[in-house]
Amino acid sequence: MSLKGACIFGQSGGPTSVINASAYGVFSEALKNPDITRVLGAAHGIKGVLNDELFDISLEDERELELLKSTPSSALGSCRYKLKDPTADDSDYKRILEIFKKYDVRYFFYNGGNDSMDTCNKISKYMLSQGYECRVVGIPKTIDNDLYGTDHCPGYGSAAKYIAATCAEIYRDATVYDTGAITVIEAMGRNAGWLTAASALAELSGCGPDLIYLPELPFDVDAFMAQVSACYKEKGNCVAVISEGIKDKEGVFIAEYASKDGAADAFGHKQMGGSAAYLAQRVKDETGAKVRAIEFSLMQRCAAHVASKTDVDEAVLMGAEAVRAATSGVTDKMVAIKRASGEEYKAEVELLDLSVVANTEKKFPLEWIDEKGTGIKKAFFDYALPLIAGENPYCWENGVPRFAALKKIKAR
Amino acid sequence: MSLKGACIFGQSGGPTSVINASAYGVFSEALKNPDITRVLGAAHGIKGVLNDELFDISLEDERELELLKSTPSSALGSCRYKLKDPTADDSDYKRILEIFKKYDVRYFFYNGGNDSMDTCNKISKYMLSQGYECRVVGIPKTIDNDLYGTDHCPGYGSAAKYIAATCAEIYRDATVYDTGAITVIEAMGRNAGWLTAASALAELSGCGPDLIYLPELPFDVDAFMAQVSACYKEKGNCVAVISEGIKDKEGVFIAEYASKDGAADAFGHKQMGGSAAYLAQRVKDETGAKVRAIEFSLMQRCAAHVASKTDVDEAVLMGAEAVRAATSGVTDKMVAIKRASGEEYKAEVELLDLSVVANTEKKFPLEWIDEKGTGIKKAFFDYALPLIAGENPYCWENGVPRFAALKKIKAR
Repeated sequence: MSLKGACIFGQSGGPTSVINASAYGVFSEALKNPDITRVLGAAHGIKGVLNDELFDISLEDERELELLKSTPSSALGSCRYKLKDPTADDSDYKRILEIFKKYDVRYFFYNGGNDSMDTCNKISKYMLSQGYECRVVGIPKTIDNDLYGTDHCPGYGSAAKYIAATCAEIYRDATVYDTGAITVIEAMGRNAGWLTAASALAELSGCGPDLIYLPELPFDVDAFMAQVSACYKEKGNCVAVISEGIKDKEGVFIAEYASKDGAADAFGHKQMGGSAAYLAQRVKDETGAKVRAIEFSLMQRCAAHVASKTDVDEAVLMGAEAVRAATSGVTDKMVAIKRASGEEYKAEVELLDLSVVANTEKKFPLEWIDEKGTGIKKAFFDYALPLIAGENPYCWENGVPRFAALKKIKAR
Repeated sequence: MSLKGACIFGQSGGPTSVINASAYGVFSEALKNPDITRVLGAAHGIKGVLNDELFDISLEDERELELLKSTPSSALGSCRYKLKDPTADDSDYKRILEIFKKYDVRYFFYNGGNDSMDTCNKISKYMLSQGYECRVVGIPKTIDNDLYGTDHCPGYGSAAKYIAATCAEIYRDATVYDTGAITVIEAMGRNAGWLTAASALAELSGCGPDLIYLPELPFDVDAFMAQVSACYKEKGNCVAVISEGIKDKEGVFIAEYASKDGAADAFGHKQMGGSAAYLAQRVKDETGAKVRAIEFSLMQRCAAHVASKTDVDEAVLMGAEAVRAATSGVTDKMVAIKRASGEEYKAEVELLDLSVVANTEKKFPLEWIDEKGTGIKKAFFDYALPLIAGENPYCWENGVPRFAALKKIKAR
C-alpha cells in the first residue's frame, strides 16, 4: 500500500474563511508523513498545475503556516477553471500528467465545492485510465453547504455564524427608531438556502428576522410585498432576509427582474446579486416607508475575524484526514463529515466516491421551512447550532488582522 | 455646588457599536452618586422626555447593565427629532420643563452627534432662561468622527476597526483569482472622510485598498475611471474605496447621478448610498472587467463583535465623566477627548461649550491626503491606530451574540 512521492494541494472556487485551515491540515500532516517526499502548493488551483506554478511548502515558516488557520480567502490563489470532457479534448489532462511525472506527484488533494469535485473526479479517472498511480482525494469547501453526501461543509459554519451575528446586530440597529423602517437583507446561495436560513439563528439573540425567503420555494413578489407590509404595519418595523437565488414560479431569478445583463461564468452560472435592492425599491415605492437594502456580499465568506471554532477545527481535520486516507491507500474519494448519532454533537470522517459527489447539489430540506414559507423550523436550529459554536482565535496585530504571509517560493 | 435630584439620560441619532458603553458609564456612575436621587433613561431620546416615556434604571439587573458594553445600537431607542427654535415655538421646551419638574430632574445627559449636541444646547439655554436649575452635559457619539472640538469621537474607533479589518479581508477575497476583478467599496461619512480613510489602515495587514476617495476633495468620475482602469491594467486587480458623500465639483452628490429621488430627513440631509453601485456599473461598462460593488451599510456602525477596546473604554469614560462633571457643578458643556502630549497614546477629558460644538463639523485634514488625492498619509495612521487598538470582549452564547436584555420598567 505504501506509495512514495510528492503531493500537490490546490484551492479552487469561491474562497471561504476557513479554506486555508484545510490547507493547514494538509500541509502539517503531509510535511510529517514519511511517504510524502515533497509538499507542493498549486498557484490558483488546477491552473497552477497546468502552468507549472507550484510552491515548495517545506520552505515556509511554521508560524506562518499556523496563521493559515485564521487567514481568509485562498492563500495559494483560486480559480474557476472547468476541465473539458477528456473524450472531447484531453490536452489539459496530458499536461497535468506531464507535470505529475515531472515532480513525481503521487498524491493530489483538491479543496473546493461542486465544480472542484468535478475537476477532482475527472483527474482521478484520467490517471486511472492512463495507469499512472496517483491517489486523488477531494476536500470539501463551500459556504453554500450544498455539497452532496457530507452532513455539512467546511466554510458553512463560519459563514452561518457571520450571518447570524450580523443579522442580530443589524436588527438592533434597523429597529432603533420609533419611526419604523423596512430592511431587506440579501445572503448568498445560488440554489440552496442554507446561508439564508442561518439568519434565523439570530432569534437566539432575541433579534431574528421577521421574514425569510429561501430559493427552494418559488418567490412571489406580490406575496412578498403583502407580507412585508403586514409585518411593518403590525410591528412598526420589518427585517426580511432573501437568498440571492430566489426565483419566481417560472424559474426567472428576481435578480434578473432588475438587471437584464446576467453575465455567465465558466460554469454557466449567471452573476447574481441585486435582488434586495430591487425589492427594497419596490417596497419603498409601495409603502413610502424608510427602506434599506443590505447585501452581505463578500463579507459573509471572508469575515474570518468571526469564524466558528468548530468550523475551523473541522476544516483542519478534513485536510489532515485527506492526507492520512491517501497515504493509507485511499483514492478517488472525497473526505466528508458524518454526524455521529447521540445527544452530543460529534463529527466523524467518512469517504465518498468522487463521482457521486461531483455536480450533485444538496438543497435545504423543505420540511424545515414553516407552513407560511417565511420561517425556519427548530430542526434546522438543532442541525446548525453545533456548526457555529465557539469563536476561533483571530490574530490581531496593532488593531488590524495579521494574516499568514507565505513566501511562495516556486518549486523547481 | 451640591445639587440633589434625578437624572435623565437619552440616546440620539444614528446608533454605534459603543453608544451603550457610554450608557453604561452614565448608569454605573449615576447609580452610585449620592446627589443623584434617581436614574432615568429616556425612550427614543428627547422624544421619551416629551412623551413621558422614561425607564427606571435602578430596577435593571447589574449583569445586564454590564452587557451594555458589548451591545450595539441604542438600548433605550434613538430618534432624529429636531427641536424648533424656542423663539418661534417653545411648546416642546415647556413640555420638557414640565417633565423635568414632575420627576425633579436636575441632571440631563444626552448622547449623540452634531444634531444631538444642538438639542442639548437648546435645552441647556432654555433651562437657564427659565431659571430652572438643571445641569446639562452632552456626551459625544458618532461613527463619522466629525464632531468639532474633540480629538475623536466614541464610536469612530470601532467603525474604523470594522472598516480596516473588513477591507483587509475583502482585499484577500477580491484578488484571489488570476483573472482579475475590480471592487468598489462604499463607506459612510456624509461630509467627512474619516471612515473612508480608515480603509487605508488595512495596509498594515498587507491588504490596503489601491485607491481611496474622500468627500473632502471634489470627485471627478472620468478621473476615477482612468485611475481604476490604470490600476487594473497594471496590477490585474483594483480595490477602490469611496465615501458615500463624494460630490462633483459643482457639489452634486455622485449618489444623485444614480437616483433622483433623494428623500431628506428631518435635518434636511439627503438619503445617501448607491454611489458604489453606480460607479461599479460605469466601470463594468467601460472595462468589461468582473466588477463588484460593496456597501458597508449598517454593519460598519453595529458590528460590535469587532469593536475596538480603546473605543469601548473611552465611551464608558465619557459617560462616567459627564456624571462626575455635572455633579461637581459643570453645566452647558460637552465632555470631550483630548490627546495627551507625549509618545504614548493617552486620552484626557476636557469640557467644551455646547454652543461651540453644536452643528460644527470637523472635516478630514486635507494635508493628510496624498498628492494624487487617492491615498492617505502617515499622519493619519499615527492618529487612528491608537483608536482601533485592542479587541473588546464580546459576549457569545451558543454561538450567537448575547445582548443586554433591559427590563425597561416605566418610571412613575
